[in-house]
Amino acid sequence: MDQREVREQFQVEQNRYVSELTEFLAFESVSTDPAYHEKCLQCVDWLTGHLKGIGFSAEILQTGGKPVVYAEYSPQSFDRTILFYGHYDVQPVDPIEEWTSPPFQAQLRDGRLYARGAQDNKGQLFYVLKALEFLVSKNQLAHKVKILIEGEEECGSKSVTEVLPSWRERLAADVLMVCDTGTPVKELNTITMGLRGIVGLTVTLSGPRTDLHSGVHGGVAPNPALEIAHLLSKLHDANGAIAIPGYYDDVPQYSPAEIQAANAFTLSSEQYQAMSGVAPVAGEQNRSFSERRGMRPTIEINGVHSGYGGAGMKTIIPAQAFAKISSRLVAGQNPAVCLTRLEEFLKKNAPTGLLLEVSDQDHGGPGVRVPLDSPVIQSAREILKQVGTGQVALIWEGASIPIVSSLVEASGAQPLLVGFGLEEDNIHAPNESFALEQFEKGFLYAALFLSQKF
Amino acid sequence: MDQREVREQFQVEQNRYVSELTEFLAFESVSTDPAYHEKCLQCVDWLTGHLKGIGFSAEILQTGGKPVVYAEYSPQSFDRTILFYGHYDVQPVDPIEEWTSPPFQAQLRDGRLYARGAQDNKGQLFYVLKALEFLVSKNQLAHKVKILIEGEEECGSKSVTEVLPSWRERLAADVLMVCDTGTPVKELNTITMGLRGIVGLTVTLSGPRTDLHSGVHGGVAPNPALEIAHLLSKLHDANGAIAIPGYYDDVPQYSPAEIQAANAFTLSSEQYQAMSGVAPVAGEQNRSFSERRGMRPTIEINGVHSGYGGAGMKTIIPAQAFAKISSRLVAGQNPAVCLTRLEEFLKKNAPTGLLLEVSDQDHGGPGVRVPLDSPVIQSAREILKQVGTGQVALIWEGASIPIVSSLVEASGAQPLLVGFGLEEDNIHAPNESFALEQFEKGFLYAALFLSQKF
Repeated sequence: MDQREVREQFQVEQNRYVSELTEFLAFESVSTDPAYHEKCLQCVDWLTGHLKGIGFSAEILQTGGKPVVYAEYSPQSFDRTILFYGHYDVQPVDPIEEWTSPPFQAQLRDGRLYARGAQDNKGQLFYVLKALEFLVSKNQLAHKVKILIEGEEECGSKSVTEVLPSWRERLAADVLMVCDTGTPVKELNTITMGLRGIVGLTVTLSGPRTDLHSGVHGGVAPNPALEIAHLLSKLHDANGAIAIPGYYDDVPQYSPAEIQAANAFTLSSEQYQAMSGVAPVAGEQNRSFSERRGMRPTIEINGVHSGYGGAGMKTIIPAQAFAKISSRLVAGQNPAVCLTRLEEFLKKNAPTGLLLEVSDQDHGGPGVRVPLDSPVIQSAREILKQVGTGQVALIWEGASIPIVSSLVEASGAQPLLVGFGLEEDNIHAPNESFALEQFEKGFLYAALFLSQKF
Repeated sequence: MDQREVREQFQVEQNRYVSELTEFLAFESVSTDPAYHEKCLQCVDWLTGHLKGIGFSAEILQTGGKPVVYAEYSPQSFDRTILFYGHYDVQPVDPIEEWTSPPFQAQLRDGRLYARGAQDNKGQLFYVLKALEFLVSKNQLAHKVKILIEGEEECGSKSVTEVLPSWRERLAADVLMVCDTGTPVKELNTITMGLRGIVGLTVTLSGPRTDLHSGVHGGVAPNPALEIAHLLSKLHDANGAIAIPGYYDDVPQYSPAEIQAANAFTLSSEQYQAMSGVAPVAGEQNRSFSERRGMRPTIEINGVHSGYGGAGMKTIIPAQAFAKISSRLVAGQNPAVCLTRLEEFLKKNAPTGLLLEVSDQDHGGPGVRVPLDSPVIQSAREILKQVGTGQVALIWEGASIPIVSSLVEASGAQPLLVGFGLEEDNIHAPNESFALEQFEKGFLYAALFLSQKF
């Protein structure tokens, strides 16, 4: 299909696209909190209906958790089979008071659509659906397309991962197409050549039966708030490297070509700070920015809470402290092994006099590493040059889509990870948004890629 | 006055005493939170009326913060002048969900009155008021009595401390009587020979403009939740001693007689654990339990908060982290100097890439050390032998009543700190209570002490 024709289609139909996406964004499909389960089911119904509406055979597949939407479309003749993956679930919205407009009532301001999920992943999967709708209507779809949209990506994709082995036949494909990634600056289009894996857990220290008076007990009772600080401070050494024995054992040596490609499209400290508000000073001090972000594991504290947090002073020794810890992994590291190492390290360093408990172990998933010389990658690269300014970056992403490696295994497909998210989209944070300009690029990319043989 | 007569009075009147105390406890006089200011004023009105009702001339004295209730009664002839100090303010009630009965609707269960303030300090000051009421009605009060009841003890007594120098004449007294302390086991009556001072502050680390995705940014963005752990872990050395340079410079050498008296009524580890739920393993490892609790400074984390704390996992690098830190001091240490040392230590150890801010500096007050050989102490000791089992403990208390040293200075009086609180009273925690049996002992002590010359 011709690029001009796709652009025209977008100009003509963009208001309808935004209006339909707004409907999709209205579902409070927060997967991590059971209180929103019913909202997730409503979102699934809507999505299934929508897929049928654009000509796909669509159905709801049950899992042990949130259901999955599955759909297929097979042109009379086709080149390859594409499995497109997305997720309809979104992150929690708190702190809700920091949102400028309600997170589930999408609002268009200055060319951006603001809502939870506007980018991650409802917005990005929606430009693919609209491209498919367009190609089907023009009979220009070059491939058989299978669609799998799940509802637990934001909390680890556990339920769908469990059933994937039994869906091997259904999911068999040549390319696994995913649009859940981004690009460092909007002048570039990006192919993601790596994803990190993830595991996580919660560690809790309990001591006193109740909060204790910090005067009466200070100096004798062990303090969970203080001891969790000591515990967490042991996770890294003075050079910012993870201090857990064996944690780097299975981290691969990336090739010089990979490291060169990764370093080619890096951000300067100034660019990074302008974007995030903070200088990129963390992590292993002897590695480049791109390596630290995409080619090395991390351990992060996602939250730590203990004792009083209100106005004024409350002189207590808190009864308990807990920390939520997650670890990003790279291809080669086994999530179960890493989780065990983390858990055992915490237990070995348990403070005297307090009870240490580990809970909410999340086995997440492993990292992904895409081969540099793949023909699918070469084809996508050419299309992305046309869609943008001609420059295409290859990046090894720091984030995780834990299910991707499981899907690669179940489908036998070659992963193709292209996305149009920008840092300023604030995914996982208040005021998430997605620029219409990026939505349009996604629409162009999807329409061109899916209408061409390779 | 005869002990039997005082006991009979209590038996006859105890129901009325509890009923009046219940009225007093109903005022939500939480001083640390401005939202309760009006409740504090209502409490002041009630208390002033009550003091007038028992025959005192009572008035409300304004300060820069919560008002103070001041009252006097002068028998036609009297021996000494006693200044009695108490506080009508109470600690916050959170976590509210852990209370068995509403904190401001006192409930009598199994001989204990449950309410916020039931012991600290409304309950303890009330037995003194009832003893005074009784002695006045029988014309048996041996001393002129001045009463000062303030409303900011739970957040540092700042406002009253500021005006004390201008009240020197009004407050001049021989003995400063305070009933805001406790006894380690109910078989003992206790004179508190020392109080710790206190200072406090909040330290905040800010970094990212908003919460960041922990995958996209993990390994490059500094993490406030992790960095506050590193910062707090530096406050103590491996032996549990405070690691801030110079912090022990002005800590006094206690005499062998003091240390012997302090160690004489200690708790075993088993007793302490049975009481608190935790073994007394914290603090300086080369000091005894009693020394660590009453004769040495501490630094405690009263709260630390950063990032996600809800159900499931939220993969963020939090934008901010804060910790509420307080330090108990002993007599000799200057609060302002200690606060400055703490603040400078934190700033010196500020993590790279994050903004460290110190706020809510609370200058608290210095510690108190009562001379072992004082005649007032000897007199009280004899009365306490009669009231209890004959055993009287001398303890150096770990808690603080920051105003006591200021009152000693303003009044020229000798401090006399006797209280009947027990650990099981859960002051500063959910389900605070006070045993009627201990209330009765307090009533006996106050009536006997205030009806005798010394």
